[in-house]
Amino acid sequence: MKGRFITLEGGEGSGKTSAIAFVKEWLEAKGVPYIVTREPGGTPLAEEIRQVVLSKRDESVSPITELLLVFAARAQHVEQKIVPALESGVWVISDRFIDSSYVYQGVARGLDIADIDRLVHLAVGDCLPDRTILLDVPVEVGMERVANRLGNDRLDAESTQFHEMVRRGFLDLAIRDRDRVSIVDASVAQKDVFEQIATVLECVN
Amino acid sequence: MKGRFITLEGGEGSGKTSAIAFVKEWLEAKGVPYIVTREPGGTPLAEEIRQVVLSKRDESVSPITELLLVFAARAQHVEQKIVPALESGVWVISDRFIDSSYVYQGVARGLDIADIDRLVHLAVGDCLPDRTILLDVPVEVGMERVANRLGNDRLDAESTQFHEMVRRGFLDLAIRDRDRVSIVDASVAQKDVFEQIATVLECVN
Repeated sequence: MKGRFITLEGGEGSGKTSAIAFVKEWLEAKGVPYIVTREPGGTPLAEEIRQVVLSKRDESVSPITELLLVFAARAQHVEQKIVPALESGVWVISDRFIDSSYVYQGVARGLDIADIDRLVHLAVGDCLPDRTILLDVPVEVGMERVANRLGNDRLDAESTQFHEMVRRGFLDLAIRDRDRVSIVDASVAQKDVFEQIATVLECVN
Repeated sequence: MKGRFITLEGGEGSGKTSAIAFVKEWLEAKGVPYIVTREPGGTPLAEEIRQVVLSKRDESVSPITELLLVFAARAQHVEQKIVPALESGVWVISDRFIDSSYVYQGVARGLDIADIDRLVHLAVGDCLPDRTILLDVPVEVGMERVANRLGNDRLDAESTQFHEMVRRGFLDLAIRDRDRVSIVDASVAQKDVFEQIATVLECVN
């Protein structure tokens, strides 16, 4: 039987790292074979591309360049890692996937959503997530959580307004694609966040 | 007045390097301001992407990944270097441009030409070359010229059959886009090659 493909999405400070740790525990308790991966990245070449995307540089980066780099990494990740794992019955848990492109490159950088749809078709094909967990927190809560991480890379260094657009963008996607995306309220106590995630995973299994 | 945008294309050993040296001499003799650039590359970020594309690696590279990397570099090159130069009245001479993608990623890797058309639209917009000089040589002539360079990078290491597809691909493009692409017979003596190039340049000027 094919593995399931689960992606986690959310803005800064939404708690993706602890959510992924919980998903791993849940899969281990069920005895389900899995891998955890991330975007941009997931293979040596895709991680090289990640470095190119996230490096601070003097040269101003064209939004189209950033978009195409992210999808170059994604095509490699899908072909070399995600599809082979799913086909061998292994679940794939990815920290970010296509929704991050719709939001970070599409909504926040003002790129055309139809262009991103075409790149998804080109780079991902039918390897779409079985379930996407969107961790939603108010921007001020998320910003406070990561205050000491700010300035670590180019994408972190954006303004609060940018993060508001990101949050709104993720919520709009969850509405557009409600059969795939589950919104988890990540502003509550951690055990209550994990309980919501467990409920989502039970429905996918 | 806007500068002119001239690209040079051709397979291995077609003599692009000496052709570009001749174009520079011609422009200097006319007192035309110009820059010479190349693809993939042309800006620090685009050159970083070039390194990623051309590096030998154990990981098998998805043709879609290669395609998207080349267009990521191109979007950066167009926005940061080519358009500003042309707008300030400077001619831009580029060693390779979109035709190399149609041929190396499209024809030779078997990717869909319609996908490449869409990427050209996305990454290049209306910044198409005023004139493209296609240096055409029979594969055996080109291969002999570069015999001592073979194996220098991943794209060089392909078979003769690959180079035959490349030559055919360039010639087909020249037919499809005959108003833009001028075929130069690069198998003749160098002074005769340069004479053909000078004729093309006189018509663009």
